[in-house]
Amino acid sequence: MRANRGIRIVKADESLLERIIEFDRRISWEFVDKNYNNDSYEEFAKTHREVFMYIHNLPGREAFLVADDGSGGILGLSWIKESWDTVNYIKQAYIYDLEVEDTHRGRGIGKLLLEESEKYARSLGLGKISLRVEIDNSKAIKFYLRNGFKPIALIMEKKIF
Amino acid sequence: MRANRGIRIVKADESLLERIIEFDRRISWEFVDKNYNNDSYEEFAKTHREVFMYIHNLPGREAFLVADDGSGGILGLSWIKESWDTVNYIKQAYIYDLEVEDTHRGRGIGKLLLEESEKYARSLGLGKISLRVEIDNSKAIKFYLRNGFKPIALIMEKKIF
Repeated sequence: MRANRGIRIVKADESLLERIIEFDRRISWEFVDKNYNNDSYEEFAKTHREVFMYIHNLPGREAFLVADDGSGGILGLSWIKESWDTVNYIKQAYIYDLEVEDTHRGRGIGKLLLEESEKYARSLGLGKISLRVEIDNSKAIKFYLRNGFKPIALIMEKKIF
Repeated sequence: MRANRGIRIVKADESLLERIIEFDRRISWEFVDKNYNNDSYEEFAKTHREVFMYIHNLPGREAFLVADDGSGGILGLSWIKESWDTVNYIKQAYIYDLEVEDTHRGRGIGKLLLEESEKYARSLGLGKISLRVEIDNSKAIKFYLRNGFKPIALIMEKKIF
């Protein structure tokens, strides 16, 4: 779809699904808070697959946009899916994951993935992209602010155990 | 389930579903941003029903906790449902709506609904309640802060039309 500094962003087909799950599992593991979930990596991998397939099987068009540099490995991923905006009652594009392999951060891969995500959302006729960022991830928040995103809501939580 | 100043919080059964949809539709309409959705109320009502039933039919145990004062009307609603925490890969309770009829605000109904929601989540064995609040709704944010909720993530959006 696009080439830049040797990086191509490609819309993956189902044949890449297992490699995408493996990539997403590895990156998602970094963000698991051990206060909530102290599963072993093996237990986590099982739950990760269940949650991944649950979202994948929800209704709504979706794309796995994958960054590669021709070497065959996945360097980055945007998982974007049509979903309901349950405040404004319109369809929107929701980015479930925008992830870049840590050894390849700083190469502009995230920005390329975001640009292709916007094109994909427009191609579906959707007028808005929404995503969630953890409040302590100031690097990601700044990245999205630089790229035209605005904070519109808070996710608030209460532990009750 | 609980009585306080004449208000009871009751776990509604399916027979109340139409009245709950009507209540939720009316309150949700207040929050629709006309920049995103300029449907008529009739068009909105159709989409609202579709989205409501979509969420209602998602897997996961749920409760509609309804506040009434014995007069038969719905004064407030908490819609709480078991869902995936897609950051920590655990099951959580998610409050889709916590709403109080505007003419009955300030009577402590929201707090009662929240307390019963916590009890319900605990009864399901869930350790955490999560919800979304719009960033410009400072009254709601303060209410949740007072009641032990902490902001943990931002929802960010970009218009692309």
